[in-house]
Amino acid sequence: MVVKYKLIKKDNKSHARLGILSTPHGEIETPVFMPVGTQATVKAMTPEEVREAGGRIVLSNTYHLYLRPGHELIRDAGGLHRFMNWDGPILTDSGGFQVFSLGPLRKITEDGVAFRSHIDGSSHFFSPEHAMQVQMALGSDIAMVFDECAPYPCSYEDSLAAKERTTRWALRCKEYHSHPEQSVFGIVQGGMYRDLREQSVDELVKLDFPGYAIGGLSVGEPKPLMYEVLDYTVPLLPEDKPRYLMGVGSPDCLLEGVVRGIDMFDCVLPTRIARNGTVFTRQGKLVVRNAAYARDFVPLEEGCACYTCRHYTRAYIRHLLKSDEILGVRLTTIHNLHFLLNLMEDIREAIREDRLLEYKDHFLKDWQA
Amino acid sequence: MVVKYKLIKKDNKSHARLGILSTPHGEIETPVFMPVGTQATVKAMTPEEVREAGGRIVLSNTYHLYLRPGHELIRDAGGLHRFMNWDGPILTDSGGFQVFSLGPLRKITEDGVAFRSHIDGSSHFFSPEHAMQVQMALGSDIAMVFDECAPYPCSYEDSLAAKERTTRWALRCKEYHSHPEQSVFGIVQGGMYRDLREQSVDELVKLDFPGYAIGGLSVGEPKPLMYEVLDYTVPLLPEDKPRYLMGVGSPDCLLEGVVRGIDMFDCVLPTRIARNGTVFTRQGKLVVRNAAYARDFVPLEEGCACYTCRHYTRAYIRHLLKSDEILGVRLTTIHNLHFLLNLMEDIREAIREDRLLEYKDHFLKDWQA
Repeated sequence: MVVKYKLIKKDNKSHARLGILSTPHGEIETPVFMPVGTQATVKAMTPEEVREAGGRIVLSNTYHLYLRPGHELIRDAGGLHRFMNWDGPILTDSGGFQVFSLGPLRKITEDGVAFRSHIDGSSHFFSPEHAMQVQMALGSDIAMVFDECAPYPCSYEDSLAAKERTTRWALRCKEYHSHPEQSVFGIVQGGMYRDLREQSVDELVKLDFPGYAIGGLSVGEPKPLMYEVLDYTVPLLPEDKPRYLMGVGSPDCLLEGVVRGIDMFDCVLPTRIARNGTVFTRQGKLVVRNAAYARDFVPLEEGCACYTCRHYTRAYIRHLLKSDEILGVRLTTIHNLHFLLNLMEDIREAIREDRLLEYKDHFLKDWQA
Repeated sequence: MVVKYKLIKKDNKSHARLGILSTPHGEIETPVFMPVGTQATVKAMTPEEVREAGGRIVLSNTYHLYLRPGHELIRDAGGLHRFMNWDGPILTDSGGFQVFSLGPLRKITEDGVAFRSHIDGSSHFFSPEHAMQVQMALGSDIAMVFDECAPYPCSYEDSLAAKERTTRWALRCKEYHSHPEQSVFGIVQGGMYRDLREQSVDELVKLDFPGYAIGGLSVGEPKPLMYEVLDYTVPLLPEDKPRYLMGVGSPDCLLEGVVRGIDMFDCVLPTRIARNGTVFTRQGKLVVRNAAYARDFVPLEEGCACYTCRHYTRAYIRHLLKSDEILGVRLTTIHNLHFLLNLMEDIREAIREDRLLEYKDHFLKDWQA
């Protein structure tokens, strides 16, 4: 069985859509946010807590799992689902973004990327074929092609070269891949150049992937520029396939992505800022670690239904964070994941009830980015 | 309401006993092990997880909470129970053990102890009265007197002086204390000297506390010496009051304490070794962090009913610990607490069924300390 997308409803005032993504590990409603479990764990959370917070599909990182504990170990453990005790769908990235981010530690050729481990400096080589091999061993429901993600800013020539290599590598991934229970998504590149994005979509759609990601965004460019790229890129993608905006997860960007037709998102933001003592509220981010909250005996957000807000005060959570207690990070992580996943549920509900743009305006009116 | 002990059954082959401790926050069966929540949290755990592991009463540290976040803040939060979301009984120590352990950072006089904070070096003073004041603000069910804990080894003269001061301070604590919902336990001192222990018991029993702790043990002396002190001290204590052996928590010591008539224990051992990647099994400790377990796809302990063992393998837990993932510490902590609390349940069951000594022999035969 492979991953299939079913379009349920199109919003009539935006490009937003409701859909169902069927995977070997169950169906999920889209638009969806995928919590990130880099090292086979959504940081600080059990799978049950991820699910209680509203998580239905998680992302895990091929680069990290390849290095530690090793994809063969995970294969021998019965695959990633069983290893990490998550029975819902899993999407793995290809490792491309991580190895390209290694800077001086990596060297790119047409064949692939030679790099050194950030853990122990050991030498490794990732090719499109190898990225497929590792993801097949992990046994994720959705694997991603090995792409070349251009940085920002990036010249037209370099963006063109990265886009062309991404297409060639996408073909190699497709030809090498042979896991019957896993689907491979293509990744659109092309930097901030409209014609390159158009070419990338054209070339990838010819390869007929069951889903398409938009890569090379949220890499440091201003948000309006990201929205512009989405404006001209998303409508070119086939309507019957899911569209995945990689690495995006701030509440405002989720809303802007959905109205432009994006179905899937992932980001470390909610879990990462939680570990730094920052939480989401409807009014924007709140640094609960600050002294201002030392005697604030109210929940992180009044009215929030998450476990954290039902049982603990800002004062207690601040005390835990200041005292380096693990429970502090657990409580902020639970709240932040709940916040984003609840936002996605509200978004789906708003599409269903033909009031998405009103919901978005209402949300963004209160939100201080 | 104050804390009351009801003796349910005496073992006829040892000094062990079954009892019920009634507190303002519910009844608990004894012998009982109290997980330690030093900074108003049992490290890495939610209160629900502590309860699921079998925890019914927790200990929290007056010294730590006084320094951070401050006892007045906790009082203003509605007390420690509400602050940390634990609705079961709480015992607080007096801070005595911690300030005496500060070494060069503290100075003892008859009035009390001047010390510097281990957090920021600020100057503080704890007297018996102040220790009571802080514990009353915390609102624990059981407060402990401010005692002088002699180190090991310790001369007869110094042990005598510490024992005498402990008695004088116990009286000051009793006279100062005025919280109607909190009971104060006395602490027997006297080092490793039989006559001093006898005098300490005599003097404290005259003050008529609702419970008695045995302090100054598990401070570095050999285990047989600790057992010897228990052998001659515990039988002197009144039968209708609970007896609490402070700072003891290894499985063999719990068994040896129970057969000598101890009703209550506390120790950071299960949670501390969990954070270092060491777990309890019926065969002894297992360092799951070791490379030997990298590909060991079985639970920490076969047949264990804890959440960790029902869902995860040693290989996965080792991966989490090696990758500094919080979930690793959570899973080992859950297992270790479950192990000890389950041992206590087995012990109570064995007393009930008149087979405690057989159970103890059986357990210790497999156990490698």
